[in-house]
Amino acid sequence: MSFFKLFINFRTINNIFGKPNWFTNIQIMKIPFIKKSTFGLLLLFQMAVAQEHPSLVLTPQSVKDIRAQLGKVPLFDASLADVKFEVDAEIALGIEVPIPKDFSGGYTHERHKRNFLIMEKAGVLYQILGDEKYAVYVRDMLLAYAKLYPTLPLHPQERSYARGKIFWQALNDSNWLVYVSQAYDCVYDFISPTDRAHLEKDLFRPFADFISIGSPQFFNRVHNHSTWGNVAVGMIALVLHDDELLDRALNGLKNDGLPPGMKDSDGGLIRKEGQKTGFLANVDEPFSPDGYYTEGPYYQRYAMYPFLIFAEALQNNKPDLKIFEYKKGILVKSVYALLNLTNSAGEFFPLNDGQKGMSYYSRELVSAVDIAYLFGGKDPSLLSIAEKQARVSLNSPGIAVALGIRDKLAKPFEKKSIDLSDGTDGKQGGVAIIRNKTGNDELTLVMKYAAQGLSHGHYDKLSFSYYHNATEILQDYGLARFVNIEQKGGGNYLKENTTWAKQTIAHNTLIQNETSHFNGDFETGNKFASEKYFYDGSNPKIQIISAKENNAYPGTTLHRTMALIQEDGFERPFLLDIMQVDSKTANQYDLPFYYFGQLMSENFSLETPKSLEPLGKKNGYQHLWKEASATLSEPNAKISWLDEERFYTLTAVTHPNDEVLFVRTGANDPNFNLRRDPGIIFRKKNAKNSTFVSVLESHGSYSTVTESAVNASSSIATLEIVYEDPYYIGVNIKNKSGVSSLLLFSTKDNSAVKKHQLKIKDKTYKWTGVYYKTTNK
Amino acid sequence: MSFFKLFINFRTINNIFGKPNWFTNIQIMKIPFIKKSTFGLLLLFQMAVAQEHPSLVLTPQSVKDIRAQLGKVPLFDASLADVKFEVDAEIALGIEVPIPKDFSGGYTHERHKRNFLIMEKAGVLYQILGDEKYAVYVRDMLLAYAKLYPTLPLHPQERSYARGKIFWQALNDSNWLVYVSQAYDCVYDFISPTDRAHLEKDLFRPFADFISIGSPQFFNRVHNHSTWGNVAVGMIALVLHDDELLDRALNGLKNDGLPPGMKDSDGGLIRKEGQKTGFLANVDEPFSPDGYYTEGPYYQRYAMYPFLIFAEALQNNKPDLKIFEYKKGILVKSVYALLNLTNSAGEFFPLNDGQKGMSYYSRELVSAVDIAYLFGGKDPSLLSIAEKQARVSLNSPGIAVALGIRDKLAKPFEKKSIDLSDGTDGKQGGVAIIRNKTGNDELTLVMKYAAQGLSHGHYDKLSFSYYHNATEILQDYGLARFVNIEQKGGGNYLKENTTWAKQTIAHNTLIQNETSHFNGDFETGNKFASEKYFYDGSNPKIQIISAKENNAYPGTTLHRTMALIQEDGFERPFLLDIMQVDSKTANQYDLPFYYFGQLMSENFSLETPKSLEPLGKKNGYQHLWKEASATLSEPNAKISWLDEERFYTLTAVTHPNDEVLFVRTGANDPNFNLRRDPGIIFRKKNAKNSTFVSVLESHGSYSTVTESAVNASSSIATLEIVYEDPYYIGVNIKNKSGVSSLLLFSTKDNSAVKKHQLKIKDKTYKWTGVYYKTTNK
Repeated sequence: MSFFKLFINFRTINNIFGKPNWFTNIQIMKIPFIKKSTFGLLLLFQMAVAQEHPSLVLTPQSVKDIRAQLGKVPLFDASLADVKFEVDAEIALGIEVPIPKDFSGGYTHERHKRNFLIMEKAGVLYQILGDEKYAVYVRDMLLAYAKLYPTLPLHPQERSYARGKIFWQALNDSNWLVYVSQAYDCVYDFISPTDRAHLEKDLFRPFADFISIGSPQFFNRVHNHSTWGNVAVGMIALVLHDDELLDRALNGLKNDGLPPGMKDSDGGLIRKEGQKTGFLANVDEPFSPDGYYTEGPYYQRYAMYPFLIFAEALQNNKPDLKIFEYKKGILVKSVYALLNLTNSAGEFFPLNDGQKGMSYYSRELVSAVDIAYLFGGKDPSLLSIAEKQARVSLNSPGIAVALGIRDKLAKPFEKKSIDLSDGTDGKQGGVAIIRNKTGNDELTLVMKYAAQGLSHGHYDKLSFSYYHNATEILQDYGLARFVNIEQKGGGNYLKENTTWAKQTIAHNTLIQNETSHFNGDFETGNKFASEKYFYDGSNPKIQIISAKENNAYPGTTLHRTMALIQEDGFERPFLLDIMQVDSKTANQYDLPFYYFGQLMSENFSLETPKSLEPLGKKNGYQHLWKEASATLSEPNAKISWLDEERFYTLTAVTHPNDEVLFVRTGANDPNFNLRRDPGIIFRKKNAKNSTFVSVLESHGSYSTVTESAVNASSSIATLEIVYEDPYYIGVNIKNKSGVSSLLLFSTKDNSAVKKHQLKIKDKTYKWTGVYYKTTNK
Repeated sequence: MSFFKLFINFRTINNIFGKPNWFTNIQIMKIPFIKKSTFGLLLLFQMAVAQEHPSLVLTPQSVKDIRAQLGKVPLFDASLADVKFEVDAEIALGIEVPIPKDFSGGYTHERHKRNFLIMEKAGVLYQILGDEKYAVYVRDMLLAYAKLYPTLPLHPQERSYARGKIFWQALNDSNWLVYVSQAYDCVYDFISPTDRAHLEKDLFRPFADFISIGSPQFFNRVHNHSTWGNVAVGMIALVLHDDELLDRALNGLKNDGLPPGMKDSDGGLIRKEGQKTGFLANVDEPFSPDGYYTEGPYYQRYAMYPFLIFAEALQNNKPDLKIFEYKKGILVKSVYALLNLTNSAGEFFPLNDGQKGMSYYSRELVSAVDIAYLFGGKDPSLLSIAEKQARVSLNSPGIAVALGIRDKLAKPFEKKSIDLSDGTDGKQGGVAIIRNKTGNDELTLVMKYAAQGLSHGHYDKLSFSYYHNATEILQDYGLARFVNIEQKGGGNYLKENTTWAKQTIAHNTLIQNETSHFNGDFETGNKFASEKYFYDGSNPKIQIISAKENNAYPGTTLHRTMALIQEDGFERPFLLDIMQVDSKTANQYDLPFYYFGQLMSENFSLETPKSLEPLGKKNGYQHLWKEASATLSEPNAKISWLDEERFYTLTAVTHPNDEVLFVRTGANDPNFNLRRDPGIIFRKKNAKNSTFVSVLESHGSYSTVTESAVNASSSIATLEIVYEDPYYIGVNIKNKSGVSSLLLFSTKDNSAVKKHQLKIKDKTYKWTGVYYKTTNK
């Protein structure tokens, strides 16, 4: 077969390909004994066989269509050339299938990972270029795996709740099968029936059984882990045309025998009572109707590849399932949610466990954007993202995107303010992203009032982060892990992820009595979500998100209202933050702000200790050095800092005996696993009801070249709570030119049509809806 | 006059200027009663007058030449348009001449500074565009200053050793006069003789007298301060054609009555016994024959403007002085030295007091590069720097550069390894810059073995910093100051500049007994310089700088040899550092390495304290928190870190009971004036002769997008001192593939022709010259 195929491929490519450039290096076998007259017959024979394989992502028809476009679509050609260069280099190095030993970042882990990534690419190259060497490479490596796999015990590293055989986690074994199923599909016809029988018996079927039946605690959950497991089994099921396996993938194991309440290695719950499992349950449950994935964008990115590549395979093989219409087209919608969850550099906001710097330039997002484009109605704004990615997948979605770009159909993908609901039904809180863009300057507020986020969730109800373009003004710490860097705990989660990164004090939100939300208890946290109170992103002059949290501390309710306000008399929009705490008991309340840069000034005197002590003993407080403190007496505390050539001033309403603490991470960190980042904590002691109000200004600039400091001081003269009762709060911001901005906010009634009336200092204000905003010059 | 001039300007511009674009906004006064036939006469009259003024930087001829090119030289036109836009905006705001009050960064300081910068530009615009509004603006502002100046006492801020009247320092007053002399020169003819007499009597002459006769401690020294003072007096002298003033500028005050040993506010010596003063002395003394300025590049940049602008004015007015040939053309040479003292982003290495981020994009360097081009033989490589600067000065040098760029004459300015001598005679040590560039990756070693550097010098003999392109791998802290940021100590030097930044422990060099070099005594330090032992930058495979310091600690000699070595078996060049200490007494030796980024691993166990204490009590040690420590037992200590997506490993030869300290700045810093930067200190206790040997590798990469860690580990298996006696040292570096790199170095004889023979482990090595290097595979 292979001789014939190769001959046809060669002809096909030569016919359509005007200028052979990058593919001139392909070794073409000339077969002189086949005459031109036999061509028609060979072609028919070829097509009859090819209708069966490839059948997952590529199909005989899509391969034909792609070949017809080779040399005509620049971005596709460039991506193909890159992949060819990469795969050729690996083929030149030879096949290595080492005995599994290492954690992520270690040699055997990285080698096996590279193997599955390269096999998938080699399979695709074989289909597109028709060069047999790629098929040979895949076949020989598969045979090596088929020889090794039956000999493998569980992976020697014992840390995971679900160990794999090739990797330390069944999760990574599943990654392997998702990619290798595609490779096998591409070279299926090339491999002899005897070898195929051997591979299926000794490798693929036991592999699929091991990660499913053999690892129910991994396979039968709702989690990004099991998504990979389900899809791995589903992909090989489609290649093998095995409907039992496919059903297992789509609907989970019928009887898993798992004890209720079982936890994974990160402390995450395996499965709730009566929960559905399998791929469809993993689509149903973690995505909100807006496409937000409850674990957060970092893991959504990770899961996007199996979700979408399997959806594409299902669409090709089981079109009646209409997977892209499932749950109102949630899979495509989720790609948009993910793109909106990025800063101006395309980096995901590091909500929950998320490694900073991960972005829509990752391979998962290239494939996701391509698939969303082709199966989601060819939205031209996705093309502008693909243009930035500067590569496409080597399949139908990829060539569709590359054609769109070539034909100049791309339109800008405009990220506007958006409020993304969380929860299967969209009623478990959410994440609001409020943006204010002027020219190339974008300020972005990311306010999180979502559900727990499964095992990768942080205890950070009503927390937020704040950006100037891609620069973090106030940060979310993200995870405590160096993914795939072996020196750092085998590339896995570090202890400090639990003791610091997940704790409430690591976030810009309220902590009561130095205890994390839900007392840091996963099961409790998993039951509750914050509650949206009000969102309005329609007026660029004032955009508001307001949400409540009633369960983080029993007997205490938190209500946070944040507004990004664009006001005359201020150089840039400022961020107003109102955090209202209402408790039955007297408590200590801490509200941190984790900034970056160098402190410039503060309007109170600081006490700095001679030696540094940790701020507390547990719940993350043990990781903070207390660098300075102050007891406040003025009605406003003002703290300014300089970061990346911009000035920032935080002005806060304070009450006598309020404290301010200047802290820095790094205490009780014997392995230097944490960054040394600074924070400011406002503390109120022995208080029942308390309200924290602050305004964060971004102002001016400093250049180290001109050495000119422009607008280096805050524009705020006074910040005042002018009214507060159980139903309303009024805040007034007076700038240095005497202009007053007044915001009145109804805190108990969020009806848009409700009429309000409020008398403050002999003046009566009347309005309809949740808030009233006025500017007095 | 002004009517006539304007008319001519209008005609001239219209005749030569094809497309009037940016200058269409210029208000043109039409003078209908002047007939075309009178044009020739008017032109003659104009030229006769104009031969006298402008006469400093612009001349009637250069103005004519510039006008003839308007609209034809894109970079000049763009620079002109930018300046016009800036000046027009200031004119629209109106003239403000406030009563002096503030430090740098404060309102009155910044306003007066802006005034002189804008006046100079307005004067130039008047000459080039001929629009009277610019002359009116300059005249009116000068009159306002002439009204204010006689009423001014000394500036109310008392911190400076030489207070000004408009500014807190006579230095800034001098800045003012350097710029304003040029403005006055440009509008001289426009101003009525009466007004001129008033300005000269009430403003310029008393101003020049005050900063010279009135401030001898400022004017009569060799220092960047007095350079500004000399040039200020010299510039106004040239405008007023006053030879007595000019002599004062060139040769200083004859009798200054200054007590010997007087100090400035930064502790710098005012004047050595019998020292020459004035501009020529300031050219003679601080520049080495290689053009290195003893204060370091940051202040060289600052002084470059008065040096060169005055040189240009002298060339125009006193060509017989041949100022550009003075001291073998040192002024132009110094521009090259300065350009070589930059990293790949054009930022100056922050030697001595230097604010990081200052670069050749500063206004001083724009003017310096333009002048060096025109008066230094039109070197096309300077054009490539000017292209990056993307603007030119609005004068003859500027248009020459812009023409060169337009005519595509630019060639790359290639920064090669260079050893710059320090000292008037080039015999007071120096600064070696060793570069290794492959593609876009440049590693740069900056090794300082210079003289004290006057009052802005640091106590950092044989210190170094190390760069990957513009990224600091090992840093020089730079200064402790936020120039022009009022909140931070009025923008002036902070206390921590003395207590931290100048101290030896703030630098990557050896500290004996926790005491700074020369015991931190300026006068002692000022007497000595380190001694060059050997430099060879000719072989890219191994570039070496070696220098000795015999005076920093009486009874102790330091000999540091550093080599940037490019070797097979290593991904990138590595840095070998050999610090030999020879003392008559037993001491404690500390050798710090100030890195950036996150620690990855170390091959020894760390002790981390529960609370942080400062490392010491004085000499900068009081500013370091001791974050961790270890006592070593292995023959090699290995410490790895990750910074900006690259891995680094420092491998050091250690002896039993050597210590390693992990430190961070920020202790005893009540105002948060210091950055919180980490460092590693190797400590040997109670030792006489000691040798520190280490290798710093840059290796691999990490991407937060692919999450792939490549070559994350050191390639070094062992690092060993294989031989050491008073005359030789031998170091062997064995990599993990078994390849050995051996360096044998003669430490007492630096002759290039001396023959050496050395027997190590039964093998005899023979070579000629200072070192022998071999690789055994």
